[in-house]
Amino acid sequence: MSQVTEFNEYRQRMNATIMAADNKVIKRFFNLDTNTYAAGALDVKTKEMLGLACSMVLRCDDCIKYHVGKCFEEKLTDEEIYEVFAISNIIGGSIVIPHFRRAVEYWEILKSEAGSGAHDGAALAAHKAEHDGQPHA
Amino acid sequence: MSQVTEFNEYRQRMNATIMAADNKVIKRFFNLDTNTYAAGALDVKTKEMLGLACSMVLRCDDCIKYHVGKCFEEKLTDEEIYEVFAISNIIGGSIVIPHFRRAVEYWEILKSEAGSGAHDGAALAAHKAEHDGQPHA
Amino acid sequence: MSQVTEFNEYRQRMNATIMAADNKVIKRFFNLDTNTYAAGALDVKTKEMLGLACSMVLRCDDCIKYHVGKCFEEKLTDEEIYEVFAISNIIGGSIVIPHFRRAVEYWEILKSEAGSGAHDGAALAAHKAEHDGQPHA
Amino acid sequence: MSQVTEFNEYRQRMNATIMAADNKVIKRFFNLDTNTYAAGALDVKTKEMLGLACSMVLRCDDCIKYHVGKCFEEKLTDEEIYEVFAISNIIGGSIVIPHFRRAVEYWEILKSEAGSGAHDGAALAAHKAEHDGQPHA
Amino acid sequence: MSQVTEFNEYRQRMNATIMAADNKVIKRFFNLDTNTYAAGALDVKTKEMLGLACSMVLRCDDCIKYHVGKCFEEKLTDEEIYEVFAISNIIGGSIVIPHFRRAVEYWEILKSEAGSGAHDGAALAAHKAEHDGQPHA
Amino acid sequence: MSQVTEFNEYRQRMNATIMAADNKVIKRFFNLDTNTYAAGALDVKTKEMLGLACSMVLRCDDCIKYHVGKCFEEKLTDEEIYEVFAISNIIGGSIVIPHFRRAVEYWEILKSEAGSGAHDGAALAAHKAEHDGQPHA
Repeated sequence: MSQVTEFNEYRQRMNATIMAADNKVIKRFFNLDTNTYAAGALDVKTKEMLGLACSMVLRCDDCIKYHVGKCFEEKLTDEEIYEVFAISNIIGGSIVIPHFRRAVEYWEILKSEAGSGAHDGAALAAHKAEHDGQPHA
Repeated sequence: MSQVTEFNEYRQRMNATIMAADNKVIKRFFNLDTNTYAAGALDVKTKEMLGLACSMVLRCDDCIKYHVGKCFEEKLTDEEIYEVFAISNIIGGSIVIPHFRRAVEYWEILKSEAGSGAHDGAALAAHKAEHDGQPHA
Repeated sequence: MSQVTEFNEYRQRMNATIMAADNKVIKRFFNLDTNTYAAGALDVKTKEMLGLACSMVLRCDDCIKYHVGKCFEEKLTDEEIYEVFAISNIIGGSIVIPHFRRAVEYWEILKSEAGSGAHDGAALAAHKAEHDGQPHA
Repeated sequence: MSQVTEFNEYRQRMNATIMAADNKVIKRFFNLDTNTYAAGALDVKTKEMLGLACSMVLRCDDCIKYHVGKCFEEKLTDEEIYEVFAISNIIGGSIVIPHFRRAVEYWEILKSEAGSGAHDGAALAAHKAEHDGQPHA
Repeated sequence: MSQVTEFNEYRQRMNATIMAADNKVIKRFFNLDTNTYAAGALDVKTKEMLGLACSMVLRCDDCIKYHVGKCFEEKLTDEEIYEVFAISNIIGGSIVIPHFRRAVEYWEILKSEAGSGAHDGAALAAHKAEHDGQPHA
Repeated sequence: MSQVTEFNEYRQRMNATIMAADNKVIKRFFNLDTNTYAAGALDVKTKEMLGLACSMVLRCDDCIKYHVGKCFEEKLTDEEIYEVFAISNIIGGSIVIPHFRRAVEYWEILKSEAGSGAHDGAALAAHKAEHDGQPHA
């Protein structure tokens, strides 16, 4: 099982357990979290870059993976995502570097699963299907 | 070997290595750490919830596991521990969510090892025996 | 103007400015934040101690003041609040100490404004009135 | 002296002291920091929003002020900056709120110094002149 | 009153209030904190540089002031303390810069109070007297 | 494959991928990071202890491993490295303990791979060869 699939399946299984516990504050927070990234005055691509940069400086590997996945869906180029990585490294410092390495590893996996580095339709659709309606982090 | 056993064995083995190094500041700090959670003006259950919430917002998976285990020993209900989780998520933000998922996973394992979701005596005793006289984090 | 009044007035003025901007995610988050501390499986006193401990280890002076104020309303004794402080210092380390000093300063002001160290009715009512219906942090 | 002027003057005075110490690593880091926000695959506006969001979740008031000032120069609308604020609050949690209040206070001062809420030329030019060629944080 | 005197007086007054509360965990922690920096396998100068670097990356202004003061007592040169600052900025990132500025400001005040940039005996003795037997942070 | 080899190989492979992306800010930052630890007014041993302490309080396991490896090369004794660990635990609090355990585990592996606890030439040379010319974190 690929790192991408494993990550998504774990998230979905645990989110289901959490939802079943039926704590109102948590349910509303998860729902709010999803809405935060919807298009508004800023488009989804910009919001996902913001989510990625924040996740990098706060050094949360799973949050980074999630937003790297979303940036992939939003068709960021290598040049663009590396500029997000650069800002995150400069603001957060060298302590961010190990998380940066894992972010790059995940980005490369997404590209290679999509086939020859391009964002081909099938892989993207599969990726998208796994994420829809899920809290983001 | 279950996640619970593995976690406890690693902690105990490394704590033993650390104690053997005989650094006075560290020994006193580990000892002080244990005393911090003893019953006083606040009872152990309250103190362990405080320890869990702090571990969640500081996002330390091992510390979270430790205090989830202690909260299990203190017989917190699902409703209670989810309110601790809710406060931690709201204060710490969505960056806490991946740690929250792992906390829930560990909580579910503890319940299932204790048999049918109940806090039965044998599992609890086994869990308790593994922890006694150990620094908390 | 006392530190307590100044703190509350600034919070209220800026919260009003924020609400006027009418960003839906922020309004829902502020509302959710308030609900998080309502009595549930855990009582308000326990939840406010959790809020205080988390604010201490995350080292946010304003959040600490807010929850110290709430703990004062919930009539925590000196012994109880110092046990919350102790857990926060041990978990968060000596880096927490300067925030701990300011927390103690604020606690002493609250007690002295309430008259002779007791939680007298008038001061408490004034304090409560300033806070009601306000997001917590 | 306005909060904006005071902030800028202090930064410039201390940066000059730091540069005079002539530590090569620090000089290169300050220079690199400035280059990070130059237009590239991403435009300056996007990069400044990334800088602001990261500063919010890391809760650094001075860094927030700096990037709020830059976002003002880049002519962000209220709606846009509040979406950056919203993402920062959701990711970073309620612990971010006190910093968010101060960010809003600074944003309002910038708007009012620029005259009637509009981004008029004179105020903007003055603001810009104070910042040019300065490390960002 | 100079920033140095004000800082020391506040620390001493609040530490006295804290000690009076007589919480055993806190008293032991403050005592342990003091012992941590005593000469051992590493000398005091090295330990204070470690304390300063940690305080910088954790971004606690009061802790930074305290250790800058101690590094001054230990007669660090400008070149040495700027190398500590450089490591802290690189590891912690640009988010550290505003704290770095305040550290430099405090360092300059200490030097100027000691007279013409040199570590003269009287100022140093005064500084030392204010600190002795105090928890560090 | 030992934990040491695995760690070094992953770092080298991902660093190569990162360098290939050819983002100027990142390349300069990685280069600057390496230069930061070169001998200057402070020697390499002191700088590596600073790097280790900062990595401990910021709780980055990979950064800790890296600097533990460097401290091993610099021939720190057990007593010395445990004093660095002690300062890090006291400043950073009990939340550091799980990272401290993994640091000790890695330190023990380095000693045992070097043969009977001594810093023998062959193991050290092998370790050094793996690290040279690599960004530090």
